[in-house]
Amino acid sequence: MNSKFIVIEGLEGAGKTTARDAIVATLRERGIEDIVFTREPGGTPLAEQLRLLVKQGIEGEQVTDKAELLMLYAARVQLVETVIKPALARGAWVIGDRHDLSSQAYQGGGRGLDSELMRTLRDAVLGDFRPDLTLYLDVTPDIGLQRARARGALDRIELESLRFFERTRDRYLALAADDPTILTIDATQSLQQVTASLQSTLKGWLAEQA
Amino acid sequence: MNSKFIVIEGLEGAGKTTARDAIVATLRERGIEDIVFTREPGGTPLAEQLRLLVKQGIEGEQVTDKAELLMLYAARVQLVETVIKPALARGAWVIGDRHDLSSQAYQGGGRGLDSELMRTLRDAVLGDFRPDLTLYLDVTPDIGLQRARARGALDRIELESLRFFERTRDRYLALAADDPTILTIDATQSLQQVTASLQSTLKGWLAEQA
Repeated sequence: MNSKFIVIEGLEGAGKTTARDAIVATLRERGIEDIVFTREPGGTPLAEQLRLLVKQGIEGEQVTDKAELLMLYAARVQLVETVIKPALARGAWVIGDRHDLSSQAYQGGGRGLDSELMRTLRDAVLGDFRPDLTLYLDVTPDIGLQRARARGALDRIELESLRFFERTRDRYLALAADDPTILTIDATQSLQQVTASLQSTLKGWLAEQA
Repeated sequence: MNSKFIVIEGLEGAGKTTARDAIVATLRERGIEDIVFTREPGGTPLAEQLRLLVKQGIEGEQVTDKAELLMLYAARVQLVETVIKPALARGAWVIGDRHDLSSQAYQGGGRGLDSELMRTLRDAVLGDFRPDLTLYLDVTPDIGLQRARARGALDRIELESLRFFERTRDRYLALAADDPTILTIDATQSLQQVTASLQSTLKGWLAEQA
């Protein structure tokens, strides 16, 4: 099977890290050993600097929604061009902790940025580059935030209102309903159940690719 | 007269700082005292952080052309929304050391980024916001770079090849020829001559606005 780009998406506290381990275990069972991990925003030294600016903001300065979006795309295109595409080209599989769908959901849904702007920017920057598969871990904002809070300090985006995360989740669900490459996992279940659902979904998908 | 956004453009070493002082002197003669200065990339704490990333890059990492362009637009939209538009709205005049035309010339002309991408991005990010007047100081790259070198250390962009600056200048000239809001000053002359040309051009423009 050709190398694939698999992305994990979901709200804070959806269980993306656990999901990553479960995906790796499933891929290894099938003899896939060359796996590259990415996270967004971030994943290159430049992109990690942009991540800090997006996550922490600047003391006393309100980051505008468009500036945030453009920093996210700067980080993304740097990661895609210098890490993801070269990895796929040499035959590695890439597992991404977030990718473009996060911007569509958080900035498009949560912040309410214009859909036409979002689409135009994505197409202009990324062309037709898309993940082969996105596993969307669906949690309600209250469950997700409860788990995220238990982990410790919240960043600038995690401090948004509950309504922000509701809009973000609504956009995730709407986009997932329209796109056959996005598979939704109920992530409100127990960790064991989420892992079982995820692995069974992934195995089904892998079987179809063969 | 309503407040205006006046931008100074040109290659490194074109004499933009001297031009700024000459513009201020001319505006003050006309009783305009509330003047805000901006520089791009930069001009807000966030935008200055992005300026550092663009100018210095990251040790050992090649900044992709698209990431550079997106960082420049992130810095620009932050400056426009939080500094330039509020200043104009309260009646201040704004003098900008570089603005969007620099991206059109350096990234579009110099780096050769697709014109359609450039136009799409500008329109998506800035809408129809444009300077009222751009004063383009035209120098040949060899004269400009000679002056810039005399000033000291060169940054990542100033270290580009002479061909890069020739393409950048060609794009500046082509865009100026097409846009009546861009007035070109011959900046290969002596400093005194450049200042005289600039002030006479500016006075002519101001008289037309009255």
